[in-house]
Formats: sequence, C-alpha cells, structure tokens
Amino acid sequence: MCVILYNDQFVARKEGKVDIEDRGYQFGDGIYEVFRVYYGKVFLMEWHLNRLQRSINELFLTLPYPIEQIEKNIYALIEKNNIVDGTVYLQITRGASGRNHLFPTNTNPVLIAYTTHLKREEAVVKEGIKVSLLEDIRWLRCDIKTLNLLGNVLNKEKAHQEGSKEAIQHRGDIVTEGCTSNVFIVKGGVLITHQADHFILNGITRMYVLELAAKLGIKIEERNYTINECLLADEVFITSTGAEVTPVIQINDHLINEGKPGPITEQLFSEFENEIKRMGMISK
Amino acid sequence: MCVILYNDQFVARKEGKVDIEDRGYQFGDGIYEVFRVYYGKVFLMEWHLNRLQRSINELFLTLPYPIEQIEKNIYALIEKNNIVDGTVYLQITRGASGRNHLFPTNTNPVLIAYTTHLKREEAVVKEGIKVSLLEDIRWLRCDIKTLNLLGNVLNKEKAHQEGSKEAIQHRGDIVTEGCTSNVFIVKGGVLITHQADHFILNGITRMYVLELAAKLGIKIEERNYTINECLLADEVFITSTGAEVTPVIQINDHLINEGKPGPITEQLFSEFENEIKRMGMISK
Repeated sequence: MCVILYNDQFVARKEGKVDIEDRGYQFGDGIYEVFRVYYGKVFLMEWHLNRLQRSINELFLTLPYPIEQIEKNIYALIEKNNIVDGTVYLQITRGASGRNHLFPTNTNPVLIAYTTHLKREEAVVKEGIKVSLLEDIRWLRCDIKTLNLLGNVLNKEKAHQEGSKEAIQHRGDIVTEGCTSNVFIVKGGVLITHQADHFILNGITRMYVLELAAKLGIKIEERNYTINECLLADEVFITSTGAEVTPVIQINDHLINEGKPGPITEQLFSEFENEIKRMGMISK
Repeated sequence: MCVILYNDQFVARKEGKVDIEDRGYQFGDGIYEVFRVYYGKVFLMEWHLNRLQRSINELFLTLPYPIEQIEKNIYALIEKNNIVDGTVYLQITRGASGRNHLFPTNTNPVLIAYTTHLKREEAVVKEGIKVSLLEDIRWLRCDIKTLNLLGNVLNKEKAHQEGSKEAIQHRGDIVTEGCTSNVFIVKGGVLITHQADHFILNGITRMYVLELAAKLGIKIEERNYTINECLLADEVFITSTGAEVTPVIQINDHLINEGKPGPITEQLFSEFENEIKRMGMISK
C-alpha cells in the first residue's frame, strides 16, 4: 500500500488530509518541490534542497525540522514505496490558523510528501512537441516555487485545448518561460535563455543544462529575448524535471528547424541522458 | 459546538479536513466569498452570489449544486451557529485529483463554509487608519476572487510590519487597490476609484458605495489615478466587507486631510450605517 510522509510521520495515503484552515488551502501560502527519481536515487537532490530552502526564506516560512532530516525522510519514502523511476512531490505550508492575511504567530508548518511512478517518455523527447504562445499573466515573484499556480494552470489548459503540450509564455514582447518548464533557444550556435530574475522560476534542469552546455563549450547568453527571436531561432527546447530536455518543433502554426529537433538540442539531451545512465551504474 | 458546511452536509468543525491532492491545496485552484452577517442576516447576499457565480465561470469551475441551495445552506449555517454579527467564509475548489496542471475530467468540486463572530470596529471606522504604499505584485486577473492570495498576504504583512492597517497597492504610478479592500479618493468633491478591470477585485462594498454616492448626488469617476493624486487628495478611504467604509488619514508619513476623516467619507459611512440599521428593523 502507498505510504506518504506527513510532517515527520509515515502514514497510509488515506490519512493524507489537512485542515480546511491550513493556509495552503486558503491562501496558497506554501512552497513545493518535485524531485526526480532514477534508479531509486534522487537526481540533483542537493540542488532541489537548496531551492526548497530559498523558497522557504523568500516567504518567511520555517521548516518543520532540519533539512538533513527531510532528505533522509525523502529517501525512506522512496524505499517504502519501491520507487525506481518516479517522482517525489513535497510541499510545506505555513500551517493552520484562523483565517487572516497576516502571518499567524502560533502555527506549525505542515509538510506532506508522496511518490509517483513515472517512466521516461522517450518518444516525446526524440520527436519533439508543439507549443502555444500565450501571454504570461502570473505575479511578479515567479522565482519562488509557491502553491499560487493558477496562472500556470490556466495557460497549460489553454495550450492543451489548442492541441499543444506546453505554452511558451511572454510578457509583452519578452519570452519568459513555459507553464511547467524553462525555454531555451539556439541561434547561430549560441544558447539563449531568460535570465534567472523575478519573472521565471530558475529550474533545476535549466541550471543543469547550462552547466552541461558550458562543459561542452557552447556559448551561453542569459538575457531577455523576444517572441520574434524565438520564432526565428534555429532550435527551441524546454527543460523541466519531468520533461528533461524536450525539443520544440512547432510554435502555434510555425515550424522550428523544419519540424525536427536540432543538433545542439540533441547534443544536450544525449549528454543529459548519459548523466542519468551513469547514475544507474553507481550503487546507492 | 461549531458546525461547518462540507459540500451539502453540516458536520462538526473537526471533520473539516480535505485531501492533500485537493487542487485548492496544490494549485490554489478555487474561489471564495466572505459574506457579512448583521442581525443574523446576510448583507447584499445576491451581490455576493452573483460574484461567486462569475468567479466560477472565469475559472471554468462548476458548482457542486445549484446556487439557490448554497444560499439556503448559508442561512442554515448561520442559524446553526447562532451568528448575529459575523461572517460566512465559503470556498469552492476544483476538488481532488492526481496532481497535474491540466483540469481533471473526473473530479468533484469541494465546497466548505464556516462562520465567525465579528463585532463592528466603530472606533477604527470613526478615527481612520494609517496605510503603507506598496508595489502591487499580483497576477493580471485580480478580478477573480481566487485562492491565489500570496501577493495580498505578503503586502498585508509588510504593511503590518510598518505599523499600517492596510497597504495601498500601485502598479508603477497607478493606484490599484488595497490587499483586502478597494481604495477611493475624493478631490474637489469628486469621488474617484480604479475602474473595475482585470487589475482589481470589484468589491461588493465598492459597488454598494458607488450606488450610495450616486443616490447622494456625488460625482463619480471610475478611472486610473496616480500615486500623486492619491497623496494630494482631499480625502481617502477604503471599503471592504469587513472594514465597511474606513477613512485613511495617513499614507506612509503623509497626512491626509490633516489626519482627520473627511466630510464625504463621513457622509458615505453614515449612509452605509443607516442601511445596516434598517436591516435590523426588518424581520428575517
């Protein structure tokens, strides 16, 4: 049976209930991480934990217990649920308190985490996806991984209605990111992506791909770029913990690289995949 | 003992628990209303129900059952909890489903509602309050009364840290609204407030005060106005279901009307109060 982590306790899934006045439920007052599991091990655990700590700090939240213990509990959760390929979803809210916008002084944070099985979608990654261009309507602190996700939800659904797998969002003329991913373009051999400021979430896979690109000697520019630069790019791809490195071959009706994944995208994906396979060869 | 409404059932408060995969908890994917109760009756019930229906439509949510039955249940809840002066908080989420940004097809909306006792704060209303000027960092659909409230929460808390009761938020140079209220200014006898577009929530008390002002023959302008117009106004006040009509007598270090509530504010408040008192004289 499926076991979840509830604060520091491992309980049955059906025990996973929270109070109606949990601030996560009434204000979206909390943060989350999605950890990727390959071969029973968490990919880039440290990076996720660092970002978790940053989100906590930015919202003036507190951890329910030390991050080292959270890490241990994540591993215990993976083991208890026999996850080989999958994810761990973990969120922390400010906890339950009589409804008031002001931070309560007397509340305990609530942590919940659970696992899912997830197979890598190799076909999607190799063939690429179609995306929609949509106006970014989110708030001005997209750098924090919070539970206020309605902007992302509405655009993801709209893209889906248009037959797209993802939306590339833009504020006015500037491309920001996807609903659940970061966006990269390649032009003349240069890899370009939005700088990590308040307008995007600095994805773990985004950071990792930038590291891989640097190692491969690819020139990198982290900067604002326009819708037009995106449409005229040689290659476009998205990154996320779930989507890894996924080529974008069509934006609305417009084909990118004649509808085929480009060479730098393939090089980065292949390097990414090698890193994962290396994980499989190391014992836990 | 306190009784809450859980979908269409009246249950004990301690039964008020929701699943960890309720989309309200993971995405803030839901909407809410706060109804004001005077003399055991809901003030402007119709107006709140109309806005509730609008929020539902804008997020492509569905009501768990007809709005007429929701209205009946709100009244039953008030009676069961013996509320004379108070509020009813009601929220509806898209319900529980395996976590995915896309709308689920197989989920049932979750409705919860509960009451609080609330006495009118007459001193605050008569003396006025200090507020802080803060940049509005919220998303671009503030017209929907959703559970994505972190922008409001962070500014309300920041204002509180500065010794203020509320923040007047602005996007660049344009004043939008408070964290939990709408903002009005008076200049040369004209009542000015931000137009009801995507940048503000169209408050029930905002609409009601506009109606009272029209009845009193006060000239009204619903339009963008600047921070400077606000600071140089003859009078400033905020409106909300909880705060009713509350004079603003100080913005940061700057006094409004020499630190005293102004005559048009007082006229509107007095008219508002008369309407409430009239409610007390009508039988249920």
